[in-house]
Amino acid sequence: MSLLDRFLQKDEVALSRLISYVENQAPDYRKILSSLYSRTGKAYRVGITGPPGAGKSTLVDKLSCDLIQNGNEVGIIAVDPSSPFTGGALLGDRIRMQDLTTKKGIFIRSMATRGSLGGLAFATKEVSLLLDAFGKDFILIETVGVGQIELDIVDACDTTLVVFVPESGDSIQAMKAGLMEIADIFVVNKADREGANRIVSELDMILDVRRKKGEWNYPVVSTEAVNNKGIDDLLKKIKEHRKYITENHLLEKHRKEQIKSELKKIMELKLKELIEKNLNDANLDQLAEKVYSGQEDPYSAGEKILENLNL
Amino acid sequence: MSLLDRFLQKDEVALSRLISYVENQAPDYRKILSSLYSRTGKAYRVGITGPPGAGKSTLVDKLSCDLIQNGNEVGIIAVDPSSPFTGGALLGDRIRMQDLTTKKGIFIRSMATRGSLGGLAFATKEVSLLLDAFGKDFILIETVGVGQIELDIVDACDTTLVVFVPESGDSIQAMKAGLMEIADIFVVNKADREGANRIVSELDMILDVRRKKGEWNYPVVSTEAVNNKGIDDLLKKIKEHRKYITENHLLEKHRKEQIKSELKKIMELKLKELIEKNLNDANLDQLAEKVYSGQEDPYSAGEKILENLNL
Repeated sequence: MSLLDRFLQKDEVALSRLISYVENQAPDYRKILSSLYSRTGKAYRVGITGPPGAGKSTLVDKLSCDLIQNGNEVGIIAVDPSSPFTGGALLGDRIRMQDLTTKKGIFIRSMATRGSLGGLAFATKEVSLLLDAFGKDFILIETVGVGQIELDIVDACDTTLVVFVPESGDSIQAMKAGLMEIADIFVVNKADREGANRIVSELDMILDVRRKKGEWNYPVVSTEAVNNKGIDDLLKKIKEHRKYITENHLLEKHRKEQIKSELKKIMELKLKELIEKNLNDANLDQLAEKVYSGQEDPYSAGEKILENLNL
Repeated sequence: MSLLDRFLQKDEVALSRLISYVENQAPDYRKILSSLYSRTGKAYRVGITGPPGAGKSTLVDKLSCDLIQNGNEVGIIAVDPSSPFTGGALLGDRIRMQDLTTKKGIFIRSMATRGSLGGLAFATKEVSLLLDAFGKDFILIETVGVGQIELDIVDACDTTLVVFVPESGDSIQAMKAGLMEIADIFVVNKADREGANRIVSELDMILDVRRKKGEWNYPVVSTEAVNNKGIDDLLKKIKEHRKYITENHLLEKHRKEQIKSELKKIMELKLKELIEKNLNDANLDQLAEKVYSGQEDPYSAGEKILENLNL
């Protein structure tokens, strides 16, 4: 039986292998995605981001358990823009998550940065397509708050949560610019700690400016993920947001925009491959020599190569 | 007088404006770089990276002062892969650097992440070309250690320093994989603090494996940048490394490799522009509709568009 057949029969080993195919851009990975695409579109994607130590992993664990208890299948993607200084451990250990993998209906995949960061956001979308085609009802995408990549990733989700802890009070002002715009629901986790009420009020104050009557109200939810408190409330808010964006055709609009940027990305990748394929190594070496010796500049040389390529 | 003429007459305002052109990919920015390219190749590029709080900025300040006292002109690029959670302040305040800007022969430019991270490394190279063409003898590129981008940036330098402090002992093991490979000189800054000797020994122990007789010996230099101690020693090591890679033709080889990746990047950008230019918006909307409704998958659709484009 082929890998694809096994995937269609919900074999998780086949799913894992196809994900690796896609991550590594193995030959024909686009053909695989192309053939599975008609099975996608059903899964609902929830993005979870926030500073390191905010308890995102625990929150994701508890949300997943609640979701499967309600009869849903869940896929989890943990994206880790690894740092050479922390050895890629920004997301903390996923050891406890391994408990989850034994639960039926939950599939977990960690994705770390290899090669280009720009590619990571795109690969995340493609892995999420596979989980979707596999039959997952919810896909939870967890990413740590360190930069632009994660904005790209959560922007591709349907509902985005930003998680804070009482200690992160000071950082709210600082991060206002980037993340406030993409978050749909704000979570104050570890809400039993000192300062929790203050941070909820601060968030409410900032959000009041954006809240408009009859529109989505950007709720702030308090949770204690470790003690399983507030998870049901959070899930309720996620479902409310889903209902809101569905009824107002915002989900459809957002997904179409996503498709357009996917189309552009797919074309870029294809062209990049064509360059690699058509580029004669000897020719490139020759040009590099010319540029190095000052006979040519790389900008003119680059255009010249393009003109001579058989694209 | 044109901007370019003023640049050639060493007008720093013109330099600043051309850098902004390049950063923003203003129309014709490639023509500008193309026309200035023959003036480049003289500057020596030193990359400085390390964890936040290691004192990189102070080190860069002191190195610059030493270099100009020896009759060199210095350009500084401070690259900041800004985080939405820290508000882009990873590199710390550059306020004290403003003292430097009043010194003749030193030019400082901060570059933050806007848009894609992948683009940042490339833009840094292009800005460094401008500084080179402007007549700088040394370009110091400072970047904080948070991920792949900075590996790309320092990889484009001729000599790379990685800066530690006594407190970062634990992280050395963790970061071995990524950064040890690109560093040419290791710096233990704030060497008056407890634990400095231990970290120097640890580094020496790790490096002994790589040190081969007759090859570059990967020195570990202790500094107290704030007190201007060890800077002369560090500068000596930088010059030794320069001599080593020049005499062994490693500099030439490395720069040719860099030119090749530049050529590829230039072609990719050019193709991306061509896609944008030739892409009919209405057509893209139509295709997105088809993909959304499930009549087509984006992979086949993307290839179809490419075939019909007049590239």
